[in-house]
Amino acid sequence: MAQQPSIPKGTRDFSPAEMVKRNFIFDTVKSVFQLYGYQPIETPAMENLSTLLGKYGEEGDKLLFKILNSGDYLDKIPKEKFQKKIHSEFTGIIAEKGLRYDLTVPFARFVVQNRNEIIFPFKRYQIQPVWRADKPQKGRYREFFQCDVDVIGSNSLMNEVELVLIANDVFKKLGIKNTVKINNRKVLFGIAEFLGETDKFNALTVAIDKLDKIGIQKVEDELILSGFNNDSIEKLKAILEFNGTNKEKIDFLETKLNQTQTGSAGVREISVIYDLLESLNLSSDVIFDLTLARGLNYYTGAIFEVVAKDVKIGSICGGGRYDDLTGIFGLPGISGVGVSFGADRIFDVMLELNLFPEQTTISTKVMFVSFGEKEQKYCLPLVDRLRSEDINTEIYPDLTKLKKQMSYADSRKIPFVVLVGENEMAENLLTVKEMATGKQDRMTFADLILKLKNL
Amino acid sequence: MAQQPSIPKGTRDFSPAEMVKRNFIFDTVKSVFQLYGYQPIETPAMENLSTLLGKYGEEGDKLLFKILNSGDYLDKIPKEKFQKKIHSEFTGIIAEKGLRYDLTVPFARFVVQNRNEIIFPFKRYQIQPVWRADKPQKGRYREFFQCDVDVIGSNSLMNEVELVLIANDVFKKLGIKNTVKINNRKVLFGIAEFLGETDKFNALTVAIDKLDKIGIQKVEDELILSGFNNDSIEKLKAILEFNGTNKEKIDFLETKLNQTQTGSAGVREISVIYDLLESLNLSSDVIFDLTLARGLNYYTGAIFEVVAKDVKIGSICGGGRYDDLTGIFGLPGISGVGVSFGADRIFDVMLELNLFPEQTTISTKVMFVSFGEKEQKYCLPLVDRLRSEDINTEIYPDLTKLKKQMSYADSRKIPFVVLVGENEMAENLLTVKEMATGKQDRMTFADLILKLKNL
Repeated sequence: MAQQPSIPKGTRDFSPAEMVKRNFIFDTVKSVFQLYGYQPIETPAMENLSTLLGKYGEEGDKLLFKILNSGDYLDKIPKEKFQKKIHSEFTGIIAEKGLRYDLTVPFARFVVQNRNEIIFPFKRYQIQPVWRADKPQKGRYREFFQCDVDVIGSNSLMNEVELVLIANDVFKKLGIKNTVKINNRKVLFGIAEFLGETDKFNALTVAIDKLDKIGIQKVEDELILSGFNNDSIEKLKAILEFNGTNKEKIDFLETKLNQTQTGSAGVREISVIYDLLESLNLSSDVIFDLTLARGLNYYTGAIFEVVAKDVKIGSICGGGRYDDLTGIFGLPGISGVGVSFGADRIFDVMLELNLFPEQTTISTKVMFVSFGEKEQKYCLPLVDRLRSEDINTEIYPDLTKLKKQMSYADSRKIPFVVLVGENEMAENLLTVKEMATGKQDRMTFADLILKLKNL
Repeated sequence: MAQQPSIPKGTRDFSPAEMVKRNFIFDTVKSVFQLYGYQPIETPAMENLSTLLGKYGEEGDKLLFKILNSGDYLDKIPKEKFQKKIHSEFTGIIAEKGLRYDLTVPFARFVVQNRNEIIFPFKRYQIQPVWRADKPQKGRYREFFQCDVDVIGSNSLMNEVELVLIANDVFKKLGIKNTVKINNRKVLFGIAEFLGETDKFNALTVAIDKLDKIGIQKVEDELILSGFNNDSIEKLKAILEFNGTNKEKIDFLETKLNQTQTGSAGVREISVIYDLLESLNLSSDVIFDLTLARGLNYYTGAIFEVVAKDVKIGSICGGGRYDDLTGIFGLPGISGVGVSFGADRIFDVMLELNLFPEQTTISTKVMFVSFGEKEQKYCLPLVDRLRSEDINTEIYPDLTKLKKQMSYADSRKIPFVVLVGENEMAENLLTVKEMATGKQDRMTFADLILKLKNL
């Protein structure tokens, strides 16, 4: 006997019930993106490795899924290299393509490749799977779906404001209570300027990023290891521990960072964003959070993250501004900003909080039972007619026991079943059973259409 | 300067304009599948190679995209094998996963893996990309999208009938005039029985399959090479050259094949299908075509193919019945039948025949021009309000020249532009420009909402 089949670890099948729930998320996200004038694009699952390598750090390079070249791929390896058996040197020769790791780098590649056809500012959204050879664990998959929305070719902070509104709208429509965190890389750099530690900016952001998880004491330890002196650390603590409203935080930082060039520009940006948001009614809390740093080095301005309020699962949306993402592909000086919604985590949150709407599971409205060949032939044109009225209809294909047919309708949650036997055919009537109540009615076909149309 | 980026050959980006057209196809196909009670599933892009290998013939195995194992993949290769440098032996060790090659084998795997949760008959559809390392050429890509609809766990020919109806509905809704060809593997086997050449059944179907392309004379030559004698060939020609209505063909074959066991069963199946179709009004021609053979060996009963009438591009939909597809994964005796719509060829056909609806390109209804910071801040709550009324709205983000902003609205084909300057703010009115006519009107915000809602 054949072995029980399985799928690669970290990947998933989606059953009909899961698909309906997932599509509810995708449809919501899409409709909001379109509400704001964003347009869809898609890029291939495979990119040239030269497009992907070096864009996600050393760790990212390792996590890329690489595709073996077709044909006699070993022949291209020079004899000396073959004998030495060095993985890294083999890989570059036997694999020239890799699977999409995120949607941002392919988007940058797309923009550069199509720059002559694109109308800037270019507002695009993209909803596709990405693949990472990460260690699978709860909430982390090797194939997962990102929903990205970015605008490229515009420096205006209006875009940042609209991205906050998009997050607000998406999570409101999904029913997820949430907090939007905002920060700005320039503010973080300003703090490094203020401390006189700009040469250790990276170490600073890495440490700050961990504050939530490891606490201030361990952050201090890390900073000392990175060579920060006590004076810097005390000044930093005073900043990070400042509490107050967003407005108070902005005022406080304006004073602290007014001597720093980058820092004061960053505070100004945050201030403009809050000024524009002020006149609107948001359901999300939008918090200016200095401890938000975000890992990826390409961010240069605003950074965002959204966390769900009632579930501990990490961020469900995040992004920021990148001033020169297309530069790596030869098109410098074009600024972009965007956020990415994590469909899989959003799914988990909604499942845990029971937020999916009830009736989004099955769309068939009515099923015709099959008593015999004659009856089937009699019913098929009726079934066909219902479908032409856009009523999702099934006819049970096999001539099996009535019990089995009814049990199929029941487990598929089909609300109405039509029974047509000798009597019904003779009288030109249908017996219609409402599955929820068990009630049976005789009616004409015209009445059935009316009944189903008014559902 | 960085090199101009590119994508792997045989793959494509989809621009917003293409996406809208493609989604028109996907949405149509999906809505018809649901009309017939089919439910969506999705499977991972990556499958274990053990799931894929051996399912598509030797040629198929070569065309599978294989994914390099992560980590130190070379270490697993025994020293002797490493020295010998045999590709086929390397591949099995350094790659354990491959990209989906079609949607049928993953579906069979899915059914076996989830057999305890599935309610049979299981009617599923699946719309996902597949990958083949084929030589790219016009209409043939290395990444392309299939739309599969299959029912598994039912022997009833009602399913075959419904698949014909599905094809009829899909192409009617897309506006593609078409011919549905039907045949049956049992009929083909019956012909081999009738000729006394059942041992050469494969050669027979391969030759018949080419009739359209190479003509009867070359088919004859091939059959002679395969060892068919003259008597067989004359008998075969008499069958293939028979002309008549579907009914006449069925009657003719019933007579010819009435001594063959498999063949007469096949003719009976075709006859039942036509009997059920008879009472319905189809826009597709449904032709019983003896020269339809279809390559894949797993078909055991009905086979289908749909060709567009006004474009030469090969089949745009095809499929058939397979009596034991899940047997390869350890679950024998479950019959299934299904067809696959080729989204990329359908796209090409619709493009060539200019069948895409006109207004399916941009969904933004109105754009607000940005004259200055003050004006932007004034407009944002109005923009927000329109969006809360589900009106797709943009506000131009940058404070650039009016001409540039208008040209953006123009090239994005946004029908209305709202201009708000000092005067408008003072008077609490908006200037609204209809882009198609150039006509400008002053109106209240309430009137704008009404105007856009009535669009």
